[in-house]
Amino acid sequence: MRKIRKILIANRGEIAVRIIRTCKEMGIETVAVYSKEDSQSQHALLADKAVCIGPAPAQLSYLNIDTLIAAALSHKADAIHPGYGFLAENAKFVERCREEGITFIGPSAENMKLMGNKIEARNTAKSLGIPVIEGTEGSLEKTDDVLAGSLDFPLLIKASAGGGGKGMRIVNNAQEMELALKEAKKEAGSAFGDSSVYIERYINNARHVEVQVLADHYGNILHLGERDCSVQRRHQKLIEETPCHFVSGEMKNKLYEDAIKICKGTGYTNAGTIEFLVDMDRNCYYFIEMNTRIQVEHPVTEMVTGIDIVREQIRVSEGKELRIKQSDISFSGHSIESRVNAEDPEKSFAPSPGLIDTFIVPGGLGIRVDTFCYSGYKVPPYYDSLIGKVIVKGDNREQAIDKLRAALSTFIISGIKTTIPLHLEILANPDFIKGNYNTKWLEAKK
Amino acid sequence: MRKIRKILIANRGEIAVRIIRTCKEMGIETVAVYSKEDSQSQHALLADKAVCIGPAPAQLSYLNIDTLIAAALSHKADAIHPGYGFLAENAKFVERCREEGITFIGPSAENMKLMGNKIEARNTAKSLGIPVIEGTEGSLEKTDDVLAGSLDFPLLIKASAGGGGKGMRIVNNAQEMELALKEAKKEAGSAFGDSSVYIERYINNARHVEVQVLADHYGNILHLGERDCSVQRRHQKLIEETPCHFVSGEMKNKLYEDAIKICKGTGYTNAGTIEFLVDMDRNCYYFIEMNTRIQVEHPVTEMVTGIDIVREQIRVSEGKELRIKQSDISFSGHSIESRVNAEDPEKSFAPSPGLIDTFIVPGGLGIRVDTFCYSGYKVPPYYDSLIGKVIVKGDNREQAIDKLRAALSTFIISGIKTTIPLHLEILANPDFIKGNYNTKWLEAKK
Repeated sequence: MRKIRKILIANRGEIAVRIIRTCKEMGIETVAVYSKEDSQSQHALLADKAVCIGPAPAQLSYLNIDTLIAAALSHKADAIHPGYGFLAENAKFVERCREEGITFIGPSAENMKLMGNKIEARNTAKSLGIPVIEGTEGSLEKTDDVLAGSLDFPLLIKASAGGGGKGMRIVNNAQEMELALKEAKKEAGSAFGDSSVYIERYINNARHVEVQVLADHYGNILHLGERDCSVQRRHQKLIEETPCHFVSGEMKNKLYEDAIKICKGTGYTNAGTIEFLVDMDRNCYYFIEMNTRIQVEHPVTEMVTGIDIVREQIRVSEGKELRIKQSDISFSGHSIESRVNAEDPEKSFAPSPGLIDTFIVPGGLGIRVDTFCYSGYKVPPYYDSLIGKVIVKGDNREQAIDKLRAALSTFIISGIKTTIPLHLEILANPDFIKGNYNTKWLEAKK
Repeated sequence: MRKIRKILIANRGEIAVRIIRTCKEMGIETVAVYSKEDSQSQHALLADKAVCIGPAPAQLSYLNIDTLIAAALSHKADAIHPGYGFLAENAKFVERCREEGITFIGPSAENMKLMGNKIEARNTAKSLGIPVIEGTEGSLEKTDDVLAGSLDFPLLIKASAGGGGKGMRIVNNAQEMELALKEAKKEAGSAFGDSSVYIERYINNARHVEVQVLADHYGNILHLGERDCSVQRRHQKLIEETPCHFVSGEMKNKLYEDAIKICKGTGYTNAGTIEFLVDMDRNCYYFIEMNTRIQVEHPVTEMVTGIDIVREQIRVSEGKELRIKQSDISFSGHSIESRVNAEDPEKSFAPSPGLIDTFIVPGGLGIRVDTFCYSGYKVPPYYDSLIGKVIVKGDNREQAIDKLRAALSTFIISGIKTTIPLHLEILANPDFIKGNYNTKWLEAKK
């Protein structure tokens, strides 16, 4: 481990821009990579160097390990930040970086194999005495495997290699299983380059509560509190907030303890997120998976702690000790994030790529917008539909909701359709305002 | 005093936008006013209603009391927020609002006559035992008045009615006096509708340190710490920061005490700023003036306290008691603001209005941009050249400088020239980094 002077960001979109910003603050040079279709994205404009790595789809560019490594070597980047998605949880990529002498900003390949792979992670958590949902033990090949098992419907098929709702299917009965399994495997394969899936008992109406962790190479492990990410559509998080008012302080402490136990038990380093489901009676919780990378929703944690998680990731990867102790971390206010997608709410949220005529971001005290778009930018149709995140911090939840509503209502985007109207509807909904929601709430209310 | 439901914002530009944002968060309706030349400004686009009040220059629109009052009455605004500049410190406007039953969001007309008028304010401060700079006692009509007096050159002519460097002239000898006086009176007249000026001994190489205050109608007075605004060019503040590392904690406490003494002594209510000059030996300080309004640099205070000053202004004007006590206010981190002007650094900072082709604002943790511009917006030549403020908060001053540098270097503006290169130069200057600067530093180093 050594001081990092130049980072290649193996990603695109808002997270690439966000990483470039922290690098600039730290005086670290940046190399952006972009697909032909992404040449006008902010991430390609803002980096010190920008390298075209091929065309869309991602398999030919952002998922091409050889090309990324070649770009890092030829531009003398001493480190790679993977962002989220694409190769962020690909242990082979991490190993390849190590072989080439490039610092991978994230956990070790061993950590990733243990915890980035969802099947392995479940087994690891179970072995540490942390509650998990009943499910298949290993990767699932044929429908017979599960039909022969003891699990009751409904069931949930999940991709072993990744998150973000990709490769996920609910299966209500035996008839649905074959098609769902086929689809899930196909989707997982194209999203993560790994088609293995597994099955869990499906828990309806739960709260998704996750714990952000940070660990260095000297055994120091911190939690940065929890995030409630229960407002979801099609297994995709839509709105995230911290703190979570749903679970008691007592249960929160258990979640923090279990999160730290997992890091300790696996020798985990760098930033990570331990995800749990909490049942609606607040009686029990289950570990569901760990994300061994920065997450889309990490800014809400940054807003209430003041800690730049990407900065800490870089420092840990340089072999530095965490500067802060658990007792130094204070949580102030309430933060909420809305993911703004280029989708048409009036056409079942079909993707709405295309030319953005006007793009005026909101601002002000406690308002943050993470984006890669701008007026005159053409959103390509080849990727995830996320075009920006609006993150706010208020003194309390009520004020945060007011701030988010004000910010979203002054976010001017013309030329494409976005999910802003959906967010404004949610923010005005009495159930949301009271905090009465769960992972199925949004779909049920439609 | 009564609940405010609709506010007319008697201003333009970034401050109008900033006030609209807080109103939206508070659920208060907004009426924007705009000159013909300002119809495409963000403030006209974002308000619930927007009313054209005439053409440029300001005398025919933003300074026209009758028109503004008529607009407020016809749109049933129950309050007016004046922003800064224009009529913000015009006691006649405040009286007129009172006569028409409109709440003026700011101090009373009596407060304003006492403290908004710089000559009166000086006398008031003196009578309260607060150190002031020697100068003429009243408004100055003829050069003979001062030449007959006992003051030594260099002297400083200042406008009685306003701030922002307008109507200000340094006079080095008797020969310069006549022209300087004529110019200053003319400039003051056109900026504030009041051409009276006064004279003080000119203090070279001082630090400008000011204290933000908030006072309600129940005798509660708070200070929100200080701001160092010593980086100036042509008497215009360019960079402001808080806390000020130059003065000792002991002197800061004296400044806070004197600021509160002035509020108490004059029965002041609402937000205000007490400005001081501190000599370079840190031996003494002088009261120079009070600004009885929100200031351009207020966001740095908001960043370190988390207190939305415009929100507090509105609450106080509704007759509400301050929610916070002095002991509740905590200051965290370090904040710096850069004022970005549409000026050409290569042409002696001549105004550079015109069409903005691309306008991409920076963002991220602890970054705030207050602006009214956007891609495709045409900056009119009739007003102040301020097009945006970049405000950052870091854990400490060093990190704040790093953040501001990163933010400014990713602020993409094409089509017009801006002062961003000057700011980047200052931020890289070893004297600035060490905090070794004063009100003449920037001009001296050129």
